[in-house]
Amino acid sequence: MRVLGVDPGLTRLGVGVVEGVAGRPLTMVGVGVVRTPADADTALRLVAVERGIEEWLDAHRPDVVAVERVFSQHNVRTVMGTAQASAVAMLCAARRGLPVVLHTPSEVKAAVTGSGRADKAQVGAMVTRLLRLDAPPKPADAADALALAICHIWRAPATNRLQQAVAAQVAAQVAAQRAGKGR
Amino acid sequence: MRVLGVDPGLTRLGVGVVEGVAGRPLTMVGVGVVRTPADADTALRLVAVERGIEEWLDAHRPDVVAVERVFSQHNVRTVMGTAQASAVAMLCAARRGLPVVLHTPSEVKAAVTGSGRADKAQVGAMVTRLLRLDAPPKPADAADALALAICHIWRAPATNRLQQAVAAQVAAQVAAQRAGKGR
Repeated sequence: MRVLGVDPGLTRLGVGVVEGVAGRPLTMVGVGVVRTPADADTALRLVAVERGIEEWLDAHRPDVVAVERVFSQHNVRTVMGTAQASAVAMLCAARRGLPVVLHTPSEVKAAVTGSGRADKAQVGAMVTRLLRLDAPPKPADAADALALAICHIWRAPATNRLQQAVAAQVAAQVAAQRAGKGR
Repeated sequence: MRVLGVDPGLTRLGVGVVEGVAGRPLTMVGVGVVRTPADADTALRLVAVERGIEEWLDAHRPDVVAVERVFSQHNVRTVMGTAQASAVAMLCAARRGLPVVLHTPSEVKAAVTGSGRADKAQVGAMVTRLLRLDAPPKPADAADALALAICHIWRAPATNRLQQAVAAQVAAQVAAQRAGKGR
């Protein structure tokens, strides 16, 4: 599974592509940042964000796009820009028929560090270790994007395993009923 | 000047096209609502919003797109959807090279009713009168989109007049300096 993680923002939008499956060493395919000038018109910044995301989708052809879920408890101006940039990321992915999944910042932190309240340095350190990099990706937005992709790869099979367990239980019940009837 | 007003929202995005210049009777060219199902995936809703806005831009070829400026003092969930829908509207317009202007709700209310704190009914009543309609456009989002377009047409020349006044003053100063030197 190849996942494009997107840490949304208008000034810096982190992008990271990770390939792999849960339980096996993961591979970093690419990492970077889409930047737009803070003094530019918002509409033009959104066009630049769209162009940047399209380039990453074209270059790396991910199977899934994982985007950080935006909350509005933070600074009002920042949240608006983040919500707008995340909308463009979701739009670009869904327009191509790619599944879009959202993960909260604490889900991502918990997935890669074991704690939903880990700081940026800890997330950067674990991303470096898990992807066997020489140094933490800079800026933090790029590292966060990789963490999002890793989180998705690791959470996806958990969901699948849960579904499989439920399916197995149902199958067992059906088999038991049949066995009962056969008596 | 033909203006497409957009009252952004994920569930209902109001669109209204008004043609005219300040000081002359205005004409409504079109009005409507782009709707997306509340139970659908956000990414797919954004794709539907994009498609809807593109259709309005194709059908009416506005010179300018006026979008309501989003604030985050309201309900968190609603604001996120509104910010995301407004991002798609701005993106669609800017991608075509159309100017995008943002007006606050109170600027729009003040422009069409004389009061920045007017209620929906008052805005609807004035839109009906100013565009010589038989009844207020329904739903309120559609009326708000028309009010945004009217607001833009009326505010644009005010901005132009201010610029012209400044330019005239500068020209007068330059002329006075030249006359002084000529003495």
